[in-house]
Amino acid sequence: MTLNSADALFADRLAQRLPPDSLRAPEPRYLAEPRDRVQGQAGILALPRSAQDVSAILDEASRARVPVVPYGGGTGLVGGQVMPDGPLPLVLSLERMAAIRAVYPEENVLVAEAGAILADVQAAAREAGRLYPLSLASEGSCRIGGTLGSNAGGVNVLRYGTARELCLGLEAVLPDGRIWNGLTRLRKDNTGYDLRDLLIGSEGTLGVITAAALKLAPLPAAMGTALIVVPSPEAALALLALARAMVGEAVSAFELISGMGLHFLAETLPDLRQPWPAPPEWCVLVDLGLPRGLDPAEVLEDLFGEALEQGLASDGLIAQSQAQAMDFWNLREHIPEANRRIGSVSSHDISLPLGAVPDFIAAAPQALARLGAFRINCFGHLGDGNLHYNVFPAQGVARGVHDGVRDEVRRLVYDLVHRMGGSISAEHGIGRDKVNDLERYGDPVKLAAMRSIKAALDPQGILNPGAVLDTG
Amino acid sequence: MTLNSADALFADRLAQRLPPDSLRAPEPRYLAEPRDRVQGQAGILALPRSAQDVSAILDEASRARVPVVPYGGGTGLVGGQVMPDGPLPLVLSLERMAAIRAVYPEENVLVAEAGAILADVQAAAREAGRLYPLSLASEGSCRIGGTLGSNAGGVNVLRYGTARELCLGLEAVLPDGRIWNGLTRLRKDNTGYDLRDLLIGSEGTLGVITAAALKLAPLPAAMGTALIVVPSPEAALALLALARAMVGEAVSAFELISGMGLHFLAETLPDLRQPWPAPPEWCVLVDLGLPRGLDPAEVLEDLFGEALEQGLASDGLIAQSQAQAMDFWNLREHIPEANRRIGSVSSHDISLPLGAVPDFIAAAPQALARLGAFRINCFGHLGDGNLHYNVFPAQGVARGVHDGVRDEVRRLVYDLVHRMGGSISAEHGIGRDKVNDLERYGDPVKLAAMRSIKAALDPQGILNPGAVLDTG
Repeated sequence: MTLNSADALFADRLAQRLPPDSLRAPEPRYLAEPRDRVQGQAGILALPRSAQDVSAILDEASRARVPVVPYGGGTGLVGGQVMPDGPLPLVLSLERMAAIRAVYPEENVLVAEAGAILADVQAAAREAGRLYPLSLASEGSCRIGGTLGSNAGGVNVLRYGTARELCLGLEAVLPDGRIWNGLTRLRKDNTGYDLRDLLIGSEGTLGVITAAALKLAPLPAAMGTALIVVPSPEAALALLALARAMVGEAVSAFELISGMGLHFLAETLPDLRQPWPAPPEWCVLVDLGLPRGLDPAEVLEDLFGEALEQGLASDGLIAQSQAQAMDFWNLREHIPEANRRIGSVSSHDISLPLGAVPDFIAAAPQALARLGAFRINCFGHLGDGNLHYNVFPAQGVARGVHDGVRDEVRRLVYDLVHRMGGSISAEHGIGRDKVNDLERYGDPVKLAAMRSIKAALDPQGILNPGAVLDTG
Repeated sequence: MTLNSADALFADRLAQRLPPDSLRAPEPRYLAEPRDRVQGQAGILALPRSAQDVSAILDEASRARVPVVPYGGGTGLVGGQVMPDGPLPLVLSLERMAAIRAVYPEENVLVAEAGAILADVQAAAREAGRLYPLSLASEGSCRIGGTLGSNAGGVNVLRYGTARELCLGLEAVLPDGRIWNGLTRLRKDNTGYDLRDLLIGSEGTLGVITAAALKLAPLPAAMGTALIVVPSPEAALALLALARAMVGEAVSAFELISGMGLHFLAETLPDLRQPWPAPPEWCVLVDLGLPRGLDPAEVLEDLFGEALEQGLASDGLIAQSQAQAMDFWNLREHIPEANRRIGSVSSHDISLPLGAVPDFIAAAPQALARLGAFRINCFGHLGDGNLHYNVFPAQGVARGVHDGVRDEVRRLVYDLVHRMGGSISAEHGIGRDKVNDLERYGDPVKLAAMRSIKAALDPQGILNPGAVLDTG
């Protein structure tokens, strides 16, 4: 199906259906993405103030067959938010729909518009004595609509689930402009197909989320944080099982950090306080959020003691203050920045069945070695089987040296992940960056079903064309 | 689209593609449902042994345009499993695909075929030192495929979620016979549209689930159970908030029981041990599953003490033994049986925003009073806002007396639920019983999207015709 550019004529027609100042030319930041790999084209930027505005925009766009790129905080890492070629798109930013519409502390529910910044939602929840648990590196700038469109993950998925599992209801506009009012605050609602979860994770290709009812959680009575040196990834997994046998869901986060990650931090961010003079090969960052009656320091000491006994740990630091806990988390949270400064050959957001994680970590470097002398920074959400498996040049070597094998590196990592029953995108999504990979590794029956669903809900193909599916 | 009966010719052709003894005439039990409201027609019963068998069946059925009714344990309460009219269907029972294919205790994952009985899955998990938390009245006979097809709920949803939230991956056969291999054990997998959640809860109208990878949980270190008398539903909700502020997710179940429910038990099942000589108006049954280091009796005493102080409780019993805990649960679990023996005028599986539950409980009896002198047994999963709101004749009055107002009773209850932002089906689904209700109360944009999706994935309309959607 041929699409048309969002030209001046289209802009004029659309402007008549929207309040003043709803349209303008997009500034460069709307056309860039964090990894600077894809450059978007300058069409029109639309800044709706209501679901009705979004409805008018999609109605006009579907009549005119103009591509629409839904835009949240612009923090996506797979190019889902920028359209580099084809007809000029309308970029639909939800930033003016940023209200927290309501908080229901007694229901553990918060209703936010799609343009609300994640950190603002977290703050509103906390103000009401509750927790909105979604937490990720870009929380200061990413927006709720984007976290849902991409089914964002982060550090607390182990306990609280991904963005999908934290959503009760949606208000969304379908490609033809109809508004679906599915903004319920219900914990259980078995009335028909799960349109909510179909839109969540569809990366703006099936509908535009305008508001969401989000699940809150009670604030844990006490928090505890520890950094524990483990002899191996196997030991890290056994330590996680031990922790969960002791305190169940109270394990809020369980992050794997490699010695290479600590080296990278020392190399690029020397002012960050490092816990050990010589980085251990592996350590884990554990967060516990405990019920009343349990003392975090005691529980962590028990855990560490048993881990020592069972050979699952060799050293460890239990945070003695909130400040020290933040120091530990600072390390973890600066790893992506250190990675950017080093400059990767290829980065991979992958997941594996938990039991296959150690095998993968053992096998991948051996396989990669035949393509070059790489440094590997493998870190991430171990409890979810989600590794950020990033491949870098040797120290002092420019990444450009490996330009010729970049695609092979990627292929090799994904081949191995696929053979082990894993996923080539754990939490970042497909965007435009992984469309070909999804065609290669995805189940063909699922892909065919996806195409059928896309054609059924967006027959003109106007929503985020080129993202997720190659529909060309 | 006209469908054809599963006749002898069709059976002959299909038999050639299946192992011997895969087809026979359905016994009466496949044509009945627990509430004896709908009588199914006798077409062919197919008993596949593998996903390949299911594939052959759906391939032939789609070529011949023969309706197929997926059949689990037959325990559904909304008639989704029996087709009362139209061409004779093929009833597709998954009962021979009942294997537990694998258990991965270290991953907290179990892979079961769709025909596995829920209780067998629970037992296999427990044998591996883990918990499969889905727990409901029919667990001894319902099958995993049915629990997923209907997104079953039950008593532990508050802590662990519905069947949907307990599923990681699916193997399923689409209406044209293609097998989707989505049986991953991954906690995170953002590779395209959420086909899994689209099939879950679609009540066999979009595909036939043949196997599932299920989430297990660690067994809590200690369990505690209490039955607490509360002055009102508001107080019950405040008590729940208090419990969750104390121990967070460790509140595994929080069930509301009405004095009428206890009366019904005394009337119909006099051998059941009752906790109080005169039933209180409201009580709650609380289950805690605690981490190591917390003593259930102590925590429950603390909770009860604070509740007394805040006026949220007036009496209470903390189970002193496993046997006593089972006595308490026996009461709760026999309420549906007592209801059956009394004989309801109309039964409603509804959900409400938590904050609206007390208002609903106050308003509904007043509204119903103008239709007759009813007894109401309101009970259920309070923590989920899910009430089983069942309306009975006055003592000594035959239910037939109210035949003339049955539809009005239903309409009145659903109107009120709808006005309060609730759902007319919390956990039982739509089946055939609530198709008209869904048309009446469902969001029209969602209904249109559902029809588009149904047409896209099942263009012939062979899968469970007449269930969920009126596609005629």
